[in-house]
Amino acid sequence: MRGAVLYGPRDVRFEERDVPKINKPTDAIIRISATCICGSDLWPYRGIQPVPEPTPMGHEYCGIVEEIGSAVTSIKPGQFVIGSFFASDNTCPNCQVGYQSSCQNRELVSTAQAPLMRVPLADGTLVSTPDVPSENMIPSLLTLSDVMGTGWFAADAANVKPGVTVAVVGDGAVGLLGVLSARQMGAGRIIAMSRHVTRQKLAREFGATDVVTERGDEGVARIKELTSGIGADAVLECVGTQEAMMQAIRSTRPGGSVGYVGVPHGVELNGQELFFAHVHLHGGPAPVRRYLPALIDLVWNGRINPGKVFDLTLPLDQVAEGYRAMDERRAIKTLLRP
Amino acid sequence: MRGAVLYGPRDVRFEERDVPKINKPTDAIIRISATCICGSDLWPYRGIQPVPEPTPMGHEYCGIVEEIGSAVTSIKPGQFVIGSFFASDNTCPNCQVGYQSSCQNRELVSTAQAPLMRVPLADGTLVSTPDVPSENMIPSLLTLSDVMGTGWFAADAANVKPGVTVAVVGDGAVGLLGVLSARQMGAGRIIAMSRHVTRQKLAREFGATDVVTERGDEGVARIKELTSGIGADAVLECVGTQEAMMQAIRSTRPGGSVGYVGVPHGVELNGQELFFAHVHLHGGPAPVRRYLPALIDLVWNGRINPGKVFDLTLPLDQVAEGYRAMDERRAIKTLLRP
Repeated sequence: MRGAVLYGPRDVRFEERDVPKINKPTDAIIRISATCICGSDLWPYRGIQPVPEPTPMGHEYCGIVEEIGSAVTSIKPGQFVIGSFFASDNTCPNCQVGYQSSCQNRELVSTAQAPLMRVPLADGTLVSTPDVPSENMIPSLLTLSDVMGTGWFAADAANVKPGVTVAVVGDGAVGLLGVLSARQMGAGRIIAMSRHVTRQKLAREFGATDVVTERGDEGVARIKELTSGIGADAVLECVGTQEAMMQAIRSTRPGGSVGYVGVPHGVELNGQELFFAHVHLHGGPAPVRRYLPALIDLVWNGRINPGKVFDLTLPLDQVAEGYRAMDERRAIKTLLRP
Repeated sequence: MRGAVLYGPRDVRFEERDVPKINKPTDAIIRISATCICGSDLWPYRGIQPVPEPTPMGHEYCGIVEEIGSAVTSIKPGQFVIGSFFASDNTCPNCQVGYQSSCQNRELVSTAQAPLMRVPLADGTLVSTPDVPSENMIPSLLTLSDVMGTGWFAADAANVKPGVTVAVVGDGAVGLLGVLSARQMGAGRIIAMSRHVTRQKLAREFGATDVVTERGDEGVARIKELTSGIGADAVLECVGTQEAMMQAIRSTRPGGSVGYVGVPHGVELNGQELFFAHVHLHGGPAPVRRYLPALIDLVWNGRINPGKVFDLTLPLDQVAEGYRAMDERRAIKTLLRP
């Protein structure tokens, strides 16, 4: 079979890869219905994160169970399933408190941009949908594998509750789905920070009530202006740069919360500034598995349509163009069909 | 009158200072019943924090109201009162959500090591006790002005709940009262990190169930050993150094919480380590005013006796010896009587 392999900066190839097999009794093999490119895939694609050797890509996936190992009991061939980018046993103490992405036996899944993939710890990782979904529901279900679960975690970590004022730093797919999540959680006001017209439009469609185009100190000043000088109750940091993180912390009111899900690259926090900011800080790799059952339910019942973040759909063999489009910000997020 | 003035590293003098007067209608003048030396006073005393000019000292206080400004309505002369080290109006939006130490009109109180002091924003800052207390209750009431309120905030910020496992980094007065606070909040297990026998003893008296003498990476390893390899649910950071902060973060389980109240000196947090640690982080200057009514009640009814942290009592004119004893760790905390 052929799948995506990253060789170095801006060098993604669609080439022959081994067909995955059951290695352990707890594995499953999935036939991918749809996969996509993550904002975090752009870090190594852009050379910001080194790529020491040719690396298969992809950690967002959904599809039909093709085969299961002898120990797998919770899913069966023919079912449509979604899983997280971190495989988890869902039984260890960290999983039991809802932090499956810190599972003591976690394994990073990274071969999803292909027609078939092996998922380790299948019982703890994969969740099946009530039935095989219609084609038009697949993009939304695919987002639950990472980007929607991550936006949801950002809002949850930022302690979004009914009526609160939320600000979202980052207008990528995660930030936009952070807006949607905050809306679902009942936020009273949602300020999207974005300077791109198409993204602003989608943010408003997802529930943003205000848009701020300024960044950095000016962005912070604008948030303060919109919140009687106090700051937002909850701020979602969905980028991972120093500027975005400081923008988030400084936009939050004392006692408020920052939920951060952008993988930090070169971020250093000054202890004294954080101390006097008086904010709550929580984040990390989203425990997507925790949210899967509830989010599947919301998509299945038509309550949310996160699949709208995909503004480019390509056949899998055009994966290189998918990366280029996102790198050049021509696309918010690329969906790939094997 | 004579009070304490810091001139430079290890140079505290007891010398003539102006008698405080009502400057604004919202001020009150208090006759100090007892004051004390704070661990944070040692930062400038040791020269770690510069002292550009001779500086009156002291921010922990309780005493009898001597005089009130014309706008003060909630207290009257003759009452025994306790206040926070940050004066607050207790009405601004930050105060209303319980963050009085981030009051929009806050003023740092810093003249308490004297027989008389001016307290700004008296209505929002001072809380009176049900009656004038007996002499033996005064040390415990004095702690509510900062050190006990700070230990309580550390436990609250670390989300201590009934049954959880708590670790406390720092065996100074704040750390010890963090132990007492965690006990009051119903923690199931409290691990005090201390290598000083007298402090270990007091920690156990306050409710510590375990003592860990190791520090740094070894201290972290020991906490992991005691918690089935996972880490504590709640960790209180009561020091303010890089080592203590990292010890706290690394001792916390994924999804657990760090409450940090040691004023950070030279602390820098690496974003990526924090991200993958998956902890909640909250702290800052304790909103002592929020807790005063409940803590006064606990002391008044004999439920807690935080005054035990004072292991040295001196007349105010020996304030310099009080600093020396704490600097040399001969005393945990020095109480001063005008």
